[in-house]
Amino acid sequence: MAADKAQTTRIGWIGTGVMGRWMCQHLMQSGYPAVVHTRSQAKAQPLLETGADWAASPEDVARASDVVFTMVGFPQDVREVYLGGQGLLKGARSGQILVDMTTTEPSLAVEIHKEAAALNVSAVDAPVSGGDIGAREARLSIMVGGEKATVDELMPFFKIMGRQIVHQGPAGSGQHTKMCNQIVIAGTMIGVCESLLYGQRAGLDLNTMLESIAGGAAGCWSLDNLAPRILKRDFDPGFFVAHFIKDMGIALEEAKRMQLCLPGLALVHQLYLAVAANGGARFGTQALMLALEKLNGENR
Amino acid sequence: MAADKAQTTRIGWIGTGVMGRWMCQHLMQSGYPAVVHTRSQAKAQPLLETGADWAASPEDVARASDVVFTMVGFPQDVREVYLGGQGLLKGARSGQILVDMTTTEPSLAVEIHKEAAALNVSAVDAPVSGGDIGAREARLSIMVGGEKATVDELMPFFKIMGRQIVHQGPAGSGQHTKMCNQIVIAGTMIGVCESLLYGQRAGLDLNTMLESIAGGAAGCWSLDNLAPRILKRDFDPGFFVAHFIKDMGIALEEAKRMQLCLPGLALVHQLYLAVAANGGARFGTQALMLALEKLNGENR
Repeated sequence: MAADKAQTTRIGWIGTGVMGRWMCQHLMQSGYPAVVHTRSQAKAQPLLETGADWAASPEDVARASDVVFTMVGFPQDVREVYLGGQGLLKGARSGQILVDMTTTEPSLAVEIHKEAAALNVSAVDAPVSGGDIGAREARLSIMVGGEKATVDELMPFFKIMGRQIVHQGPAGSGQHTKMCNQIVIAGTMIGVCESLLYGQRAGLDLNTMLESIAGGAAGCWSLDNLAPRILKRDFDPGFFVAHFIKDMGIALEEAKRMQLCLPGLALVHQLYLAVAANGGARFGTQALMLALEKLNGENR
Repeated sequence: MAADKAQTTRIGWIGTGVMGRWMCQHLMQSGYPAVVHTRSQAKAQPLLETGADWAASPEDVARASDVVFTMVGFPQDVREVYLGGQGLLKGARSGQILVDMTTTEPSLAVEIHKEAAALNVSAVDAPVSGGDIGAREARLSIMVGGEKATVDELMPFFKIMGRQIVHQGPAGSGQHTKMCNQIVIAGTMIGVCESLLYGQRAGLDLNTMLESIAGGAAGCWSLDNLAPRILKRDFDPGFFVAHFIKDMGIALEEAKRMQLCLPGLALVHQLYLAVAANGGARFGTQALMLALEKLNGENR
């Protein structure tokens, strides 16, 4: 199906970082011609070398393509790319589809959807989870918000990039679902790190401790995947502390807007700010352990 | 092996509640004659009817058996059963083994171990996880603290009651490991409940939301097993709020003793106190959702 479409559908791609780069590549390898733009052209080089065309601005990407995907950094980047002076909406034409796969504010997704609709353009929010490995191996979970007909039309593209693709509801629902994902992770991270810290202070052999608890009601992805890294003092990023702080900040802002108090999330957010304050912004999320150790006078 | 031993080893069992009752029954079914004691004799009736003998006090249990297992309620119960006027240590003889499977204070386990050692009696702490279902189906995780030789001697008994049996280290290590387990669970519970509350307020279909997030980095036992119950507004206990409050209280006390600040655990403990304050002590731990809803003005 993708191969048939290759003749007719030209994709635009904005943002070619650690995830976007792979996601775009998967689409190109499925036969879709692509036009790309990104803030620093050097980051697009691997895609340009394998046949993508370069566009000088988001506006130009919109003019040169049929379906545009964006995967940028922060909400202000999304705003600039969509609504800025040389933004996508300047170049978009009636009937076109714009898909933001960045994790960003649900309310911004709704705003973009509304602005786009006024031009008869369909905007969809489709943030992902699975990290750079999920992007590289096309195993992402994609959480989609937008009109059903548009989402159906996008399914062939999503299936090339991900494995678990779920239409969550109207515009903004994809972003809200991603926030739900990050809120659970915030909880599992504080639980895992405080547990390891307690065990460490109590003099347990932490690997032996994990043997006892990993298979039961304490079992979680973070315990399986990040606790072993912490025990090896490996704080390399799977997912950056800086990005997790961004995501939790968005969730807390949206929660405030909805008059919702989330004390656990607020606490974890604060502790991650402490990780960043101590130089850990580019560490992986397991570096929460470092802030808790510091708080408790441990120098390791 | 159990069948051979049945001729010579007589077990004592104290505490025949929702878990102890099944654990003792498994040992009896493996051929071990048993003498039991529990605060209210009525609770021991099923065991007495299948051949167990009754003893009037912990002291009498010790006199009438070779290895004693205890599975009672709160630390003060453990203290009374072991160190009280008619406690196990009054009746214990040199070479005897006493095994506390209650979740209790690590420092109390160390104290009992020391008092017992002075009488040449071996005390072992072996709390479990897996709940009443794990007890009934002999699928418990048993976390053991004590001397290796004694723990080795107990292995045939533990294997009848559980599936994952790990010697964690000296006296108290089993209890410390159980605390590590509960600390992780505290984190996963706040993450799961705040996530559901956020999603609910945002107007998501929560079952659809869970489809997107359960298989990834947010994945955890609580999300798989308790979130669906919350969505059905089923707050029946798998594990009682009152018991979880006890366990978190122990972990916080021990942490304080070790000069350890665990802000996440402290917050979750407080919120569970709110669950109990609103009449939820006998609900299951998923009732944390009710306290968060109440905090946020939701009347459901």
